[in-house]
Amino acid sequence: KVIWTVLVTILGYASSLPVGDDSLCTAEELAKYKIIFTGKWSQIAFPKQYPLYRPPAQWSSLLGVTHSSDYSMWKKNEYASNGVRDFAEKGEAWVLMKEIEEAGEKIQSVHGIFSAPAISSGTGQTSTELEVHPRHPLVSFVVRIVPSPDWFVGIDSLNLCEGDHWTEEVSVDLFPYDAGTDSGFTFSSPNFATIPQDTVTEITCSSPNHPANSFYYPKLKILPPIAQVTMVKIKKSQLGLSAPFINLPAKSNEIIDSVS
Amino acid sequence: KVIWTVLVTILGYASSLPVGDDSLCTAEELAKYKIIFTGKWSQIAFPKQYPLYRPPAQWSSLLGVTHSSDYSMWKKNEYASNGVRDFAEKGEAWVLMKEIEEAGEKIQSVHGIFSAPAISSGTGQTSTELEVHPRHPLVSFVVRIVPSPDWFVGIDSLNLCEGDHWTEEVSVDLFPYDAGTDSGFTFSSPNFATIPQDTVTEITCSSPNHPANSFYYPKLKILPPIAQVTMVKIKKSQLGLSAPFINLPAKSNEIIDSVS
Repeated sequence: KVIWTVLVTILGYASSLPVGDDSLCTAEELAKYKIIFTGKWSQIAFPKQYPLYRPPAQWSSLLGVTHSSDYSMWKKNEYASNGVRDFAEKGEAWVLMKEIEEAGEKIQSVHGIFSAPAISSGTGQTSTELEVHPRHPLVSFVVRIVPSPDWFVGIDSLNLCEGDHWTEEVSVDLFPYDAGTDSGFTFSSPNFATIPQDTVTEITCSSPNHPANSFYYPKLKILPPIAQVTMVKIKKSQLGLSAPFINLPAKSNEIIDSVS
Repeated sequence: KVIWTVLVTILGYASSLPVGDDSLCTAEELAKYKIIFTGKWSQIAFPKQYPLYRPPAQWSSLLGVTHSSDYSMWKKNEYASNGVRDFAEKGEAWVLMKEIEEAGEKIQSVHGIFSAPAISSGTGQTSTELEVHPRHPLVSFVVRIVPSPDWFVGIDSLNLCEGDHWTEEVSVDLFPYDAGTDSGFTFSSPNFATIPQDTVTEITCSSPNHPANSFYYPKLKILPPIAQVTMVKIKKSQLGLSAPFINLPAKSNEIIDSVS
């Protein structure tokens, strides 16, 4: 069953995450992947202050990039760029797209940009395709949590290259991050800039350690994943001129089974 | 100046719109375009009931497709598909993506799908790339007007092929459409399904002919364009492996000048 492959891949990823180590990729020229983002932000899993109105819980557009270790879209414990701040606070992608474009031009650290449509509820799915290159085998993306002060989920520099070949399939659970630019404590807090800006931090069930925080669940050891992302390599035979698709999975949280 | 080229192209497009006439394309194999969407929904141009709060005026993700005349994403005076209804009412793209995928599989009428990130205000810009093919030279897309009952802007089957070559650049003004699925009259009307469903209609300054309508401006002859889209062919030399970008224009409403 594919589920074991996926689990092994996840474990391999978690235990030996080669962040930034993209110098040893000797894989064939290019690879294309289907990337499927699944929101798991349900009222059952996250009952506290779950946003029901104006706006209800939902996800912004997904904005991502394939790149080398010379570029970083965002990184835990470092300061968010202006582009990531605009995206995390407002879902506004323009400045971040310009930052990515400049990195592509000036230091050739970027291969391509990709985006997927927003999801209008907390638990839906969206998908698109991305392309990696042996010199640009890393994938990063962000999706804003809506509503929220400056919270997002994402991936930072996931390497899809394994020596001389491309990973067939990888699935990663996602947890919320705070961009460090707005001091709101709850999903619907009014805007209140953090000055001086703080670094990007993971939000857990105990951090920020304050009962007012929307993700503060003192009885839990860890939060359930609020989202999940799966990347599946597209077979060359599926890259027909008039059919650049692979099947979208059925809309379901059981994404692992549906891509088998 | 490029502005004349653009105007001529627009006039050519408007006067001889070859909707569905994609049978005579003998252009070289493929072409890539940068597509830039510019929101022009300002409070100055559209003062009536301009949405300032929860949510303020903004644009959804852009979802588009390149296709042959055997596929239609949406068409004036015809009924919207379930996917277009979900997208126009909620910005939810999943069903529309599945419809496009099925058209690609069953009747090979689709070449590719593309999306661009949402814009968090009425007057920003967003952009992405698309690819057309001689058998699939038509471009269609939709962007939801947020907030609104089921209003959107978009393009239906714009042919980028001109006989044996691909259009260098084209710019089109966009006006609001009603998907015919929700009977709300104003930007912030509560949901109220239209039963039976109506067809897709253009919203003008006099239609619907009722003072309560958010676009009803009895003193105007025509509405100002609420958005604009520009597609610019990407030169082959710009299709480097590590630089699949062309410059994004400066963020401005003067898009025609900024792409010169």
